Amino acid sequence: MQIALVVYDRFTALDVVGPYEILGRLPDAQLAFVAERPGPVRTDTGFLAVTADRALDEMPHPDLLVVSGGPGTRAQMENPALLDWLRAADAASTWTTSVCSGSLLLAAAGLLRGRRATSHWGVLETLAQFGAEPVGERVVTDGKYVTAAGVSAGIDMALTLTGRIAGDEHAQAVQLLTEYDPRPPYDAGSPDRAPAHLVEELRTGGRFSLT
Amino acid sequence: MQIALVVYDRFTALDVVGPYEILGRLPDAQLAFVAERPGPVRTDTGFLAVTADRALDEMPHPDLLVVSGGPGTRAQMENPALLDWLRAADAASTWTTSVCSGSLLLAAAGLLRGRRATSHWGVLETLAQFGAEPVGERVVTDGKYVTAAGVSAGIDMALTLTGRIAGDEHAQAVQLLTEYDPRPPYDAGSPDRAPAHLVEELRTGGRFSLT
Repeated sequence: MQIALVVYDRFTALDVVGPYEILGRLPDAQLAFVAERPGPVRTDTGFLAVTADRALDEMPHPDLLVVSGGPGTRAQMENPALLDWLRAADAASTWTTSVCSGSLLLAAAGLLRGRRATSHWGVLETLAQFGAEPVGERVVTDGKYVTAAGVSAGIDMALTLTGRIAGDEHAQAVQLLTEYDPRPPYDAGSPDRAPAHLVEELRTGGRFSLT
Repeated sequence: MQIALVVYDRFTALDVVGPYEILGRLPDAQLAFVAERPGPVRTDTGFLAVTADRALDEMPHPDLLVVSGGPGTRAQMENPALLDWLRAADAASTWTTSVCSGSLLLAAAGLLRGRRATSHWGVLETLAQFGAEPVGERVVTDGKYVTAAGVSAGIDMALTLTGRIAGDEHAQAVQLLTEYDPRPPYDAGSPDRAPAHLVEELRTGGRFSLT
């Protein structure tokens, strides 16, 4: 199974490295980080570069694609090279997936019209501008389209997909291998339960920029 | 605050990319991926290379160091260049931390003698060979030494550290930013609760190699 992890300047690393870590354990998986041009691609914080081993053009028809999100999404929403590739790849894919604001790229490519989808909570409503139905859940499956909420949600999405592709037992083995038994020291990972002033602060661009 | 993320051939990406994503949001954080030699460093699956922006020698005294685990750990346990760097860095650090089998590197460098520490469940007992006390918890703090269990546990460790360094509110803001509200689709992330035959299969090197 060919799996393309799509990255671009100022993507968010965990968005795709979570799914990479899980999906890379699928039987016969062939994963590649892909970008418009091969070579190092720098993340949103500037502190990390991952290597895109292949150009988008070199991997036109992956069986599964995972589109990263991040502050760089906004620029890519107007990049015809990426949007054209997404449309062509999606036409032949078995699964088309995204993490975080990566769903805005699928939406901008016209792939989520009339579909239920999710995104990072801070940009979720933007999906509606592209004819998608925003759903505030952690992993949303609509046919072959699987979208995950912000950043860390890609891990849950990838385990869900692993179960669909290789069966529950294999997915459980991968969960055990990666010791994915989360114990967050706080309960602030969702805008429904985080302190309201922090939600507001992030929404208005205080402390961190969301996009 | 200078933060060094220590990687080497055949490290496990999520071990350090989890902490990178969280710790990179500390106020005034300066993170760098470091390796014996700068340049691309390939992970255990072979499907990903991250760039080590600096050589170990170029960052001799980070305030905080995070040591990755992975199948490559075993070779590094006999690499004097890395072990010497760990000892010198630890002598000046505020926090010395590891994820997964990375704690075996701290232990092999002699830094965990008489200390409580954790590791990936599959190699946890190996810590005792170096005079550490193996503790089967997700995040173990003993003075300035903070060790995390396997792979995904680095996220919990990094949020715990963020709270200690920058306060609970900042840690909660980072948790909200990264939407870390985990919803694993299975309950198999710990050897205590995963199906026993899967634990046995992984221990004996079936399906995946643990180290």
